[in-house]
Amino acid sequence: MEDVKPFELTREFADSLKQAIEQGNDAYIIKSLEGVNSADITETLEEFTTDESKYILNLLDTQIGADVISGLEEDTRKRFLRVFEPEEIAEYIEYIDSDDAADILNEIPTKTGEEVISSIENEEKAEHIVDLMRYDEDVAGGIMAKELIKANLNWTVEQTTEEIRDQAENVSKIYSIYVVDDQNKLLGIVSLKKMLLAKRGTRIKDIYESDVISVKTYDDEEEVVAVMRKYDLESVPVVNMQEKLMGRITIDDIVDVMTEQADEERQLMAGISEDVEEDDSVWVLSRARIPWLVIGLMGSFFGAEVIGLFENEIAVIPIMASFIPLITATGGNVAIQSSSLVVQSLASKSAFRETAMKRLAKVILVALINGILLSLLAFTISYFRRGDMDVSIVVATALMSVVILASLSGTITPLVLDKMGINPAAASGPFITTMNDILGLAVYFTVAYFLI
Amino acid sequence: MEDVKPFELTREFADSLKQAIEQGNDAYIIKSLEGVNSADITETLEEFTTDESKYILNLLDTQIGADVISGLEEDTRKRFLRVFEPEEIAEYIEYIDSDDAADILNEIPTKTGEEVISSIENEEKAEHIVDLMRYDEDVAGGIMAKELIKANLNWTVEQTTEEIRDQAENVSKIYSIYVVDDQNKLLGIVSLKKMLLAKRGTRIKDIYESDVISVKTYDDEEEVVAVMRKYDLESVPVVNMQEKLMGRITIDDIVDVMTEQADEERQLMAGISEDVEEDDSVWVLSRARIPWLVIGLMGSFFGAEVIGLFENEIAVIPIMASFIPLITATGGNVAIQSSSLVVQSLASKSAFRETAMKRLAKVILVALINGILLSLLAFTISYFRRGDMDVSIVVATALMSVVILASLSGTITPLVLDKMGINPAAASGPFITTMNDILGLAVYFTVAYFLI
Repeated sequence: MEDVKPFELTREFADSLKQAIEQGNDAYIIKSLEGVNSADITETLEEFTTDESKYILNLLDTQIGADVISGLEEDTRKRFLRVFEPEEIAEYIEYIDSDDAADILNEIPTKTGEEVISSIENEEKAEHIVDLMRYDEDVAGGIMAKELIKANLNWTVEQTTEEIRDQAENVSKIYSIYVVDDQNKLLGIVSLKKMLLAKRGTRIKDIYESDVISVKTYDDEEEVVAVMRKYDLESVPVVNMQEKLMGRITIDDIVDVMTEQADEERQLMAGISEDVEEDDSVWVLSRARIPWLVIGLMGSFFGAEVIGLFENEIAVIPIMASFIPLITATGGNVAIQSSSLVVQSLASKSAFRETAMKRLAKVILVALINGILLSLLAFTISYFRRGDMDVSIVVATALMSVVILASLSGTITPLVLDKMGINPAAASGPFITTMNDILGLAVYFTVAYFLI
Repeated sequence: MEDVKPFELTREFADSLKQAIEQGNDAYIIKSLEGVNSADITETLEEFTTDESKYILNLLDTQIGADVISGLEEDTRKRFLRVFEPEEIAEYIEYIDSDDAADILNEIPTKTGEEVISSIENEEKAEHIVDLMRYDEDVAGGIMAKELIKANLNWTVEQTTEEIRDQAENVSKIYSIYVVDDQNKLLGIVSLKKMLLAKRGTRIKDIYESDVISVKTYDDEEEVVAVMRKYDLESVPVVNMQEKLMGRITIDDIVDVMTEQADEERQLMAGISEDVEEDDSVWVLSRARIPWLVIGLMGSFFGAEVIGLFENEIAVIPIMASFIPLITATGGNVAIQSSSLVVQSLASKSAFRETAMKRLAKVILVALINGILLSLLAFTISYFRRGDMDVSIVVATALMSVVILASLSGTITPLVLDKMGINPAAASGPFITTMNDILGLAVYFTVAYFLI
């Protein structure tokens, strides 16, 4: 550590690299990227044009280039790989783990992908990738890697160590060794620590742990995340229906899945329809935002129709109009609170769910308590501020009804969405909020119609 | 695997355990929990009363009991540990990693905590825990564990293996061995894989990697998450200002931090003021929800005041009232879209930020594009539906202004909150939405005042 000055990404550094590319100063580029972590090179290249990036990549070691390519953001990589020949891509793919390789090949056009696969020299690797490409993105099979170390039950520790030596180049991170029988059926695991501490000549069957936690190829990625979190695992073996060992999922994949989930939930809650980031182009950003805004707008016009039905009443008692935002805002707040509690509880699966009836009873109780409090408060403020008893009673009654309805819709909607296979976080998004607005207005003016 | 029937958590199983406790049927309890993963026992106990849980824990191996205790949710554990004597807690603490132990001791009353510490037999452990309790919860020092394997630069692989053997009981998961000099200064790392593959007699200094990525004890947990994610690390060493090795953070801690962050963000966006879950009591749930509902209500009354100023205009042109939800809903949607994009970009730190001016210019451009589209649409619908040119112009103009203002406030608020050390996700919450409502209403009626 003493001599390693931590590498610092600066715009100056990026600019000096760009200048070197222009001048064809290869020696400078090679020297300044020597010993730099591939993740830092990746971050730098995110700022570069495709041609500049390719120029730099050609000067680097293939392994580092492969790490950079698999570290790039999907958008950047798609654009980037367009300037590469299939053979060039294949060369990098040889150094990329099978799970990331399959993801990359799924991103590029099918024809190019097939050319890449037929150019991969390591046949086993090519087979692995083709195999992985069959799985859906969001099941265990779609996130697992084929690279793993397995040992037969009857091997000795030395034989297994030899296997690790042979595979060391292919398997970058080893957490445990999977123990299988002659039919490749998963029997258990041995930790690397146990291997290191075992006496010479010990057989795997004497040190392996047989109660291993595994997931199935067809398990949902959410389930995999839940299992790895619950049992605190850094890697989990993936088996097929016949319990045969098919691959393994490592914790870094889980961290990626969790980040994706958080991003998706945030975008659903905010009503953004594509996976965009702040540094995307103005056009992409507008396009991602407009659909939900238009839906919200259309919904509000329906709301306007509802209010329009009561124009005569409003003309007579214009104070009625003042409380429109009170009704819609409170309804929206209650609904979003309810739905996000459901989303949270769906995310942390527990074996002991309360029964549907019990949950609903609780939702209604909470709604009653909060509804009563809010209605009393609203009644008091409205009465003392305006002195109109009738209007105050209408506001309090409507508010109470809206709180209960919004609690119910906020609770039921995410559950229904989840059952339909839609991300329940959408229930906190603009579509449902707009629906709630319309519902709230209808309640408010109906109550007004009957009470005034 | 063949004989291990995967354990299944069912209510029946939980009930049969409860019955056994009542009957004092210890043999049944011991037998049915034999070989069950501690995470499953933890999940079962979350459903039990404190006394039932203690009864079961007393029958289990201390190591398993310790795993169960450190796996419990904070609320449950707090309640649970109240029925234990300090000496009993100390016994479990001996088996819990120092980072989790420090967290647990921070949860219980200070006096009990001190009694626990003085009852810990392993003095080094007690020292470690006291040391860790000094750090803030949300910095690297507060999440690191003291348990790690370190080797002196001059040791051989065999000496290091001996050290691992000595420490094996204390350090549950070993990813790498940290290499230090005689002053405990961090010099580099050696992976377990390299150790296993090294020839006999090899010295650490010949196989260690010197460019190790480390974090400082005072680094924010967000920074630690970012570093571990960027460099794809399963553990990271923590050093102090003098580069001395103080502890290590493992990926499972990061997964926990990420889950906490996601929960916190969701609750801030939804306006829930405590860390509650759907299965908390009705009272806790109401209490967590009411503050933001009241704030929203008060805000809406301010909005009502704004509308009240224009009561005369509304009495004359009651259609004006119909478009109130259109203005507030669109403003809210735009603001939440903007703020969540900022929150997302703050979460994924990049070295190359666009300049403030460039970002603001982009925000305004996107707002202009979307504002023009929405205004045109609103003008068209409103005109064809109502045929009132004046009102349609007012609605379109007000909508345009609200979209721009909401984009700006939605972008600037999270940035300001972040600078103030407040979680920027609060900008998507009810307080800011309420502010936006009031702003939108003021704009709408001001435009109406001048144009009609």
